[in-house]
Amino acid sequence: MNREMLFSARARSMKRSVIRELLKLTSNPEIISFAGGLPAPETFPVAEVAIATNKVLWEESSKALQYGSTEGDARLRQDLVELMKQDGTPANPSDILVTTASQQGLDLAAKIFLDPDSTCIVGLPTYLGALQAFKSYQGKPVGVPLDDNGMIPELLEETIKKLEAENRRPKFIYIIPDFQNPAGVTIPESRRHEIIRIAREGGYLIIEDTPYRQLRYTGKHEPTFQSLAPDCVLSLYTFSKILLPGFRLGWVYGPDWVIDKLVMAKQGTDLCSPPFNQAIAHHVMASGALQKGLSKTIELYAQRRELMLSCLDNHLLSVPGIKWTKPEGGLFLWLTLPEGMNTDDMFHAAIQEKVAYVPGSAFYPDEDDHRSMRLNFSYSSEAQICEGVKRLGALIHKSLGS
Amino acid sequence: MNREMLFSARARSMKRSVIRELLKLTSNPEIISFAGGLPAPETFPVAEVAIATNKVLWEESSKALQYGSTEGDARLRQDLVELMKQDGTPANPSDILVTTASQQGLDLAAKIFLDPDSTCIVGLPTYLGALQAFKSYQGKPVGVPLDDNGMIPELLEETIKKLEAENRRPKFIYIIPDFQNPAGVTIPESRRHEIIRIAREGGYLIIEDTPYRQLRYTGKHEPTFQSLAPDCVLSLYTFSKILLPGFRLGWVYGPDWVIDKLVMAKQGTDLCSPPFNQAIAHHVMASGALQKGLSKTIELYAQRRELMLSCLDNHLLSVPGIKWTKPEGGLFLWLTLPEGMNTDDMFHAAIQEKVAYVPGSAFYPDEDDHRSMRLNFSYSSEAQICEGVKRLGALIHKSLGS
Repeated sequence: MNREMLFSARARSMKRSVIRELLKLTSNPEIISFAGGLPAPETFPVAEVAIATNKVLWEESSKALQYGSTEGDARLRQDLVELMKQDGTPANPSDILVTTASQQGLDLAAKIFLDPDSTCIVGLPTYLGALQAFKSYQGKPVGVPLDDNGMIPELLEETIKKLEAENRRPKFIYIIPDFQNPAGVTIPESRRHEIIRIAREGGYLIIEDTPYRQLRYTGKHEPTFQSLAPDCVLSLYTFSKILLPGFRLGWVYGPDWVIDKLVMAKQGTDLCSPPFNQAIAHHVMASGALQKGLSKTIELYAQRRELMLSCLDNHLLSVPGIKWTKPEGGLFLWLTLPEGMNTDDMFHAAIQEKVAYVPGSAFYPDEDDHRSMRLNFSYSSEAQICEGVKRLGALIHKSLGS
Repeated sequence: MNREMLFSARARSMKRSVIRELLKLTSNPEIISFAGGLPAPETFPVAEVAIATNKVLWEESSKALQYGSTEGDARLRQDLVELMKQDGTPANPSDILVTTASQQGLDLAAKIFLDPDSTCIVGLPTYLGALQAFKSYQGKPVGVPLDDNGMIPELLEETIKKLEAENRRPKFIYIIPDFQNPAGVTIPESRRHEIIRIAREGGYLIIEDTPYRQLRYTGKHEPTFQSLAPDCVLSLYTFSKILLPGFRLGWVYGPDWVIDKLVMAKQGTDLCSPPFNQAIAHHVMASGALQKGLSKTIELYAQRRELMLSCLDNHLLSVPGIKWTKPEGGLFLWLTLPEGMNTDDMFHAAIQEKVAYVPGSAFYPDEDDHRSMRLNFSYSSEAQICEGVKRLGALIHKSLGS
């Protein structure tokens, strides 16, 4: 059998993510890992899930354990409309598609928009799972740099003009507006209007991916892109960071003609997301446990963020040229080392010192930033944060000296 | 925004499945529906699932509600190896990938094998969800007719030779060997060897899709393609028909170099299937509830199959030229009307008479059979089967007369 000939062109270009292989090294329990993007398990509302699950099993099992509609549980979609409304985003249930978490939202969007060699705009840096989804359909993500206020509109406009001139019109603009993964930065309202103006003028769709939006610890609430421009924004949400990841549930909201195509794409992909999990999520939301749990999660993560920032001050402020972002929410901050240092090279030494991060290169379409790292502050305990930043600090000082 | 220009070529060719739209008509509770492919909800082991779920929530929630590995829960993969071994198929856990049910197995296989215009072999008729998955990657399914013993080897060989001569070498041979959907037929062992010989000689991969394999009511056990030719067979399994569909869990087993690529494809698609559901499925299997439930399910479906066959004898044996298959297992039988009749046209009349089926055309890549229908015997109660076949019989006799 000619194996290479057998695979599709898209499969031939798939590679095992180097980063995911590296992260396997971090499973050693002695290693303090700031690498993953995991929520803290102590935030999982176990009792509330148990109550909801028993309700589902004893009162509605013949429906919840059966096949469901591709669009998703009608009650859950209504709950999600309420959640979006409370966040200032008017929505209607018929334009919601429940997905197998937001990674599926990214996959389905790539499936319906990207042809081989289609371009799309992403932040520099951006979420590595999005890069993986877009590349798996042979799309070509084109980066637009971020600053402390997120994607820079002038550079976005310039990049689009350049692509248009080359006849490589991007299929969409992919943005993580709130506490961006990996940079931790948030786009202020004025800049959101600016980006929307650029999208509308060129006739572009914005894909707004906002998994952490409800996790704000400080600063002022910004309106969603969806609420500002429902005509040209497709929004991806997930339960993974606001409830728990183990259900693999998320949702997509946007213009009906886009949702319609996404429903067709999802039918052939997995028929429907688990009706059992959707029914449980509905009862958890109906009981108010989601909101109650969120307040506690916010309190916990706010403390951990504060602690990590203060430990970084303690151990690294003295390094000339170093900098890190101060996210107002979410799970991550972004640390940039002085010129000449290399976080890819330093990764194995870090593992030796029993501390882990994700090298910044993973978040670039061409892997061409080697001075940065992403640090997660949601998963580790306070003691681990203190000790982990200390280890990281010692390592950076040592690398600087050598 | 130029909507058509925005979509990918594959999305532009996606259409809402006519059949799924038709099936929405059957949601009226007065209609007796033989159309769906639903398991009977009375077979769902609710108490066993409740026990397993409580175990998962109170003993291992921090793992089961968290992200999991793309490959799947290690304990569950070990359980699946045992299940396959009991079925005469040696397997090892590292070559199992847990999927979001077998529809995702089909989607991922299409993703890694099919380029636009790639051909692949399917039965005539074949599972409509497979056609949808293959077409969603712009693949071109090419049909090979079945007889009462499944895919006809001589016609398979002929079709492959023809495609090779046209330089359109098929990427794989897609087969549902046991109680085929929709035809209900099973491939005997001798013919399995014949098909494997053809595949090996041409260097082709066989995709064996066997969702109902454990549901045999009569006749003799046939070996899996996987057990006969592990070098060139990728097997798709699902929990949907042997436990329950609402978890959306299945698995894929095959050569390591194929599984390796499927894992990469799945990473970008949905990261992992729900760890919560996988943990529950593991405990249900460990408690023996899957096997115990299966015996009861087999008993129930065997009765319903027997009843449907005898009702068809009562009401339709007198129609000249009519025929139907007598499946030894699974959920479906396949009824073919006399020359000149049309099951697409008759569908709306059937809805008027409050009985539903799936028109045979749905199971053909080019929708070019109009004399057949698929009837499901697992979902309806015995009273509904009697009454539904009576209504169908009256309708066919009426159509014959007109």
